[in-house]
Amino acid sequence: MSFAQQYPSHLLQQAVNEMSRLPGIGRKTALRLVLHMLRMDPNQVDSLANSLSQLVHEVRYCNVCHNISDVETCAICSDSRRDAALVCVVENVQDVMAIEQTQQYKGLYHVLGGVISPMDGIGPSNLEIQSLIDRVRAGGVREVILALSPTMEGDTTNFYIYRKLQDTGVDVTVIARGVAQNDELQYTDEVTLGRALVGRIPYTA
Amino acid sequence: MSFAQQYPSHLLQQAVNEMSRLPGIGRKTALRLVLHMLRMDPNQVDSLANSLSQLVHEVRYCNVCHNISDVETCAICSDSRRDAALVCVVENVQDVMAIEQTQQYKGLYHVLGGVISPMDGIGPSNLEIQSLIDRVRAGGVREVILALSPTMEGDTTNFYIYRKLQDTGVDVTVIARGVAQNDELQYTDEVTLGRALVGRIPYTA
Repeated sequence: MSFAQQYPSHLLQQAVNEMSRLPGIGRKTALRLVLHMLRMDPNQVDSLANSLSQLVHEVRYCNVCHNISDVETCAICSDSRRDAALVCVVENVQDVMAIEQTQQYKGLYHVLGGVISPMDGIGPSNLEIQSLIDRVRAGGVREVILALSPTMEGDTTNFYIYRKLQDTGVDVTVIARGVAQNDELQYTDEVTLGRALVGRIPYTA
Repeated sequence: MSFAQQYPSHLLQQAVNEMSRLPGIGRKTALRLVLHMLRMDPNQVDSLANSLSQLVHEVRYCNVCHNISDVETCAICSDSRRDAALVCVVENVQDVMAIEQTQQYKGLYHVLGGVISPMDGIGPSNLEIQSLIDRVRAGGVREVILALSPTMEGDTTNFYIYRKLQDTGVDVTVIARGVAQNDELQYTDEVTLGRALVGRIPYTA
């Protein structure tokens, strides 16, 4: 609809305005969600509202890996069974959760909080890159695994970090790029297929 | 992913749990929204949270049409330029907004709050049907326009209301069903096309 919607209530309009600020939530979706809340138990809506306010005011970040944490040093960083000499560099919280989900990784993390993206005005100083370098220079780290998204921004950030760590003597590795499980080879793009060939490894049965 | 996600923070998990109770918001979307809030100004998040709590606690419904309203009698019902003898029966707030948007209607509304749906346990007593009958019996209403969705539930509700109003002498009409603007005739379903033929009206240039 091309002209402004008339809301029957100011309170309703205000709630819709606020909800539609969230990414991917248009005004119609916001209205649908807000009207759904009117059919919910008001205590449940309060509980939702409080949990959001509480989160943004009380959120803490781990002083080692900068992941979201309830305590000063997060559960992963303070777990003595994990290999503290191995640091996996990721973009955000979701990436830590995705890697943990694989149950293939027993090292620690370093959460950058994004990738270098001049188009969005995000430079190295807006990310947790200096803290990564300081962490490596403090000693005890054997290998830094770069696990950023295989995009131009991810590649730029990988290169920047690699250059900054070059003289520390630490091993810098990058996660393998290749064909995804269950992908059909004929539909795999040429960059991915090329990288999969170049990055081939000895076959193990 | 098949097994439970490990959230790095209890506050984060709680906010995700609450958000994912909303319809159409899965856990991944909830996590994305909540992490976006962490990058917003905390005051904006408070403002969102407060607007939701305020809405559910302070919401009022018009004592005439039962639409959401900030005052006892809503702006539409108290507008003396509108035709109070014409009452359009709709399912919900969004339907009022959609009809207002057409700028074709100058009567009043009656918001049922749903339609009769035995499958969902919604009977006439869960809807604002008795208040509609009382409103008509109180006098001053010339025509009741049924504008419910053209579904089995809508049809059932239309029939129920029609029967209840039969002895009041008020005109009961139903909005036209036919081919939608810009629809191609060959792709229109047979029920709609049949109704469009039966419901034909004199051509006016």
